[in-house]
Amino acid sequence: MKPGQKTAKGTATRARIIETAARVMFENGVAETSVEQVCSAARVNASQVYHYFGDKRGLIAAVVDFQSQRLGPAGRLDSMVELRAWARERVEQQRGGDAMGGCAYGSLAGQLGTGHPEFREQLVDGFGGWLARVESGLEAMHRRGELVEAASPHELAIGLLAATQGGMLLAVVTQSSESLEIALDQALDRIAALTPQAGRIAAA
Amino acid sequence: MKPGQKTAKGTATRARIIETAARVMFENGVAETSVEQVCSAARVNASQVYHYFGDKRGLIAAVVDFQSQRLGPAGRLDSMVELRAWARERVEQQRGGDAMGGCAYGSLAGQLGTGHPEFREQLVDGFGGWLARVESGLEAMHRRGELVEAASPHELAIGLLAATQGGMLLAVVTQSSESLEIALDQALDRIAALTPQAGRIAAA
Repeated sequence: MKPGQKTAKGTATRARIIETAARVMFENGVAETSVEQVCSAARVNASQVYHYFGDKRGLIAAVVDFQSQRLGPAGRLDSMVELRAWARERVEQQRGGDAMGGCAYGSLAGQLGTGHPEFREQLVDGFGGWLARVESGLEAMHRRGELVEAASPHELAIGLLAATQGGMLLAVVTQSSESLEIALDQALDRIAALTPQAGRIAAA
Repeated sequence: MKPGQKTAKGTATRARIIETAARVMFENGVAETSVEQVCSAARVNASQVYHYFGDKRGLIAAVVDFQSQRLGPAGRLDSMVELRAWARERVEQQRGGDAMGGCAYGSLAGQLGTGHPEFREQLVDGFGGWLARVESGLEAMHRRGELVEAASPHELAIGLLAATQGGMLLAVVTQSSESLEIALDQALDRIAALTPQAGRIAAA
């Protein structure tokens, strides 16, 4: 076997372990998930998990990174059209029963945010990265005059992210996407009201 | 000892166990908390915990009820003054380092909402009770004409609760109350904008 093949295979195995661990931890809780359960679900040996991640703590850290990259806004959210499309995707994901849907990161934060200081920085980085991306899109709109002077991209970004997380939490608990949809609509309407075209949009 | 005394003492012991369990579970996580840890922190015997709660599951259920009653809106929130006072209390609680502050319920929901169907109904009841109380206050304002006809008390209540939960999650993770304050301000400003006096308030 050529070394290149082995590396590619290793990368795929590592990715499969992370994805499986993320699913099992989301379904059963982080603390309740054992390395053995992940091994059995991912069809790997415990030695492979320890090889790639050191210990369960290393595996949790990889899951936090994976969910942070997977669930945050990916593209440029620098127009009302893109912001609304992104919000619609979140609601569809929730409604479509993607059980691993957006709340997974909030769930990780809920489980690890207190009592696990070693993961706090990583969680902050995840939320911080999302906030920075949403904020930079709103800042671009602000610079181009697509948001009125008085608008604060920072505050609007926090409001949108809080609505997303709070709406998802309520949606998961009540098993209905209604609260996510309502919370996101309100956050987006607030941004839309600060566009120079607000009057026209409101009349439409 | 008279029976009355014993009952009063029992009630106090039961309350102390619940309060201690809530704190330890918040600090260390529900799954990571053992009945032994709670006993040691509350200075009781394991037999007392089993007497009052049956098992750890019963103790968790009591903690969910306790947090649901402690953290939800207590009084009548049927005016902008009371809504703003309630929001200010949430921010003060967060800022004052009441570690058991408002996010404890969201944290419980994050830990128990998935993978623990036996607690889902109870968590839904908790959020549902909060939502009903906030909504009934907004409905009273609506009936009295203190919110314009087009306002939806249901949607405004969901937006306020989502902002509270999402803002608290961000505040806990970033260890700053700023995001909670911003998210709550936005939710309350949206309600204030739907009062007939909105013009005067905006000018103030």
